[in-house]
Amino acid sequence: MTALSIPVHVPRGEFRDAMAHLPGAVNIVTTYGAAGQAGLTASAVCSVTDDPPTLLVCVNRSSSAAAAFLENPSVCVNTVGPRHQDLAILFGGKTPMEDRFASASWEKGASGAPVLLESVVSFDCRVAHRHVVGTHAVLFCEVLEVAIAKGEPASVYFARAFHAVSQ
Amino acid sequence: MTALSIPVHVPRGEFRDAMAHLPGAVNIVTTYGAAGQAGLTASAVCSVTDDPPTLLVCVNRSSSAAAAFLENPSVCVNTVGPRHQDLAILFGGKTPMEDRFASASWEKGASGAPVLLESVVSFDCRVAHRHVVGTHAVLFCEVLEVAIAKGEPASVYFARAFHAVSQ
Repeated sequence: MTALSIPVHVPRGEFRDAMAHLPGAVNIVTTYGAAGQAGLTASAVCSVTDDPPTLLVCVNRSSSAAAAFLENPSVCVNTVGPRHQDLAILFGGKTPMEDRFASASWEKGASGAPVLLESVVSFDCRVAHRHVVGTHAVLFCEVLEVAIAKGEPASVYFARAFHAVSQ
Repeated sequence: MTALSIPVHVPRGEFRDAMAHLPGAVNIVTTYGAAGQAGLTASAVCSVTDDPPTLLVCVNRSSSAAAAFLENPSVCVNTVGPRHQDLAILFGGKTPMEDRFASASWEKGASGAPVLLESVVSFDCRVAHRHVVGTHAVLFCEVLEVAIAKGEPASVYFARAFHAVSQ
């Protein structure tokens, strides 16, 4: 073993601090299926390709919601704004799943996943495949339906605080 | 072949319009190596895991910069703010690579990729692996070094316009 064979990564704390300086959308991501209904708040969502329309979501495999996301075929990404800030905090915490969902209004998407009413935009998806990277799984999701709330401000998480951005 | 075997995706135009409503950071992503120096502007960057510190970048395989990103082992993600808005537009357009890089100040990162001076945050990375999804490649990048400009505002692209967010 030589020193050169080991990549020297940035320390974990510095990586987290740096990531806090990359602005991210605030998304409440949901799933429903045989493995149960679950949801979490994630900024790690991005567009992959429009052929077929595909986005990805990174999910921590040790989170309470992970089992459902790793098994169910349905995912809905609900991008939210200031009106859902408390809900985003709830879905980012330790509250039981049932209580999280009881705190807002939903309808069932084509995939079966809960679609949040009055989100800025929702992407109802089927999971095309999953790719495990260390502690996380990357879910590649093909988009079945979208719903856009024109004129609704969105939230951005940056420097460990929420910021509103207008359309 | 039955109708049920074909997932019915959202039309491409609707997908793009919906994606425009998911706020994204503005990142000038660079590479350097045997396949040349190249850079592009991307919002499709997100954190994957901190063990080892890893982010991902989605690159259109038909872009002028693609060949370099698909071959070189180095990537630097430079997240920018209002001071680099014109540069982000330049790196998102058709300008020759040499002219793009001549328009700003850079230093060489540990990976060899150009690090943009005065970016909000920079992540100098080695590409750990690539994952092709249709028209795009997802680059999984392990982070070697970061640089953070404390107090610097960042830009967010949302509803097809730039927005400044403060620390």
